[in-house]
Amino acid sequence: MQLNLRVDCGIILWHMEKFMRMALQEAQKARDIGEVPVGAIVVKDGVVVGHGYNKTETLKDPTAHAEMEAIRMASATLGGWRLIGCDLYVTCEPCSMCAGAIVWSRINNLYIGTMDPKAGACGSVFNIVQEEKLNHNVNIEYGILQEECSQILKDFFKNLRRTKEQKLEDTQNWRESVRF
Amino acid sequence: MQLNLRVDCGIILWHMEKFMRMALQEAQKARDIGEVPVGAIVVKDGVVVGHGYNKTETLKDPTAHAEMEAIRMASATLGGWRLIGCDLYVTCEPCSMCAGAIVWSRINNLYIGTMDPKAGACGSVFNIVQEEKLNHNVNIEYGILQEECSQILKDFFKNLRRTKEQKLEDTQNWRESVRF
Repeated sequence: MQLNLRVDCGIILWHMEKFMRMALQEAQKARDIGEVPVGAIVVKDGVVVGHGYNKTETLKDPTAHAEMEAIRMASATLGGWRLIGCDLYVTCEPCSMCAGAIVWSRINNLYIGTMDPKAGACGSVFNIVQEEKLNHNVNIEYGILQEECSQILKDFFKNLRRTKEQKLEDTQNWRESVRF
Repeated sequence: MQLNLRVDCGIILWHMEKFMRMALQEAQKARDIGEVPVGAIVVKDGVVVGHGYNKTETLKDPTAHAEMEAIRMASATLGGWRLIGCDLYVTCEPCSMCAGAIVWSRINNLYIGTMDPKAGACGSVFNIVQEEKLNHNVNIEYGILQEECSQILKDFFKNLRRTKEQKLEDTQNWRESVRF
């Protein structure tokens, strides 16, 4: 019995990591076009029905977060806005907007890679998806491939800071070269 | 001085009611297609740059709330996702999703018609738009054309209940007519 339980846990963990790795691939797509690297996928009965990555700068749309894109695609795929029986995998803790969309769309389970202590709304600043006053609550599993999900964000912001510093240095060098 | 203040207050109130009336017209469009009647508009420097109404059932999209539609249109109109200096008028208190989008898009002022004690996230269940931990806060004015904004929702849900009761009665009558 104990052995079966261990085997079952292994299979569940393998599944969770498999889908989070797909979400990470979405995050990489965001990084490759210069967007904050967050990716999400929606899964129903083991099949991916929606996926998305952050495109706020590209689309000039403040609502174009990874989770929103994935939820919209899943709704289109399944032909309705109630995503009952669906799970959402996202590399970074959803913000208030995405957490609200998760509740509205009736997502069952939410799998989070890394937390966002500054704006996260699934346990950090708020816990919208588990607020009992709302008409739907969501189960959460935290820390799936936590290290990789965190590292892609750290690397992105490190590069961003480096690029800004380089630009500042270039501007200063140019100013000095034209000084008379 | 007191007279000027009274005149200024009158002008501000007139402006707020004028824009809320436009949001109400959007809500009527939602009602006319059988959607929960909520409407929103985004205003910059006295000009409407975005408008929208609830289309969740029509588009089969859980994110297609009035505020989201208005914000997306405003972002497209202004060519960027930062709606700095913009005001949002909405007939019913925004939910967590829309409140999150209002914070992300850097809306300055939020004018609300009627409150939503069940899912409102601007003072009722949460107050996301004024949470100090987030990187942007929004000023709120409550109760603009409160009675009209509330009435359109009450009428909608009353009709919805009546239609459901009628359907139930029709089904019972049919069952009785075919009983043998």
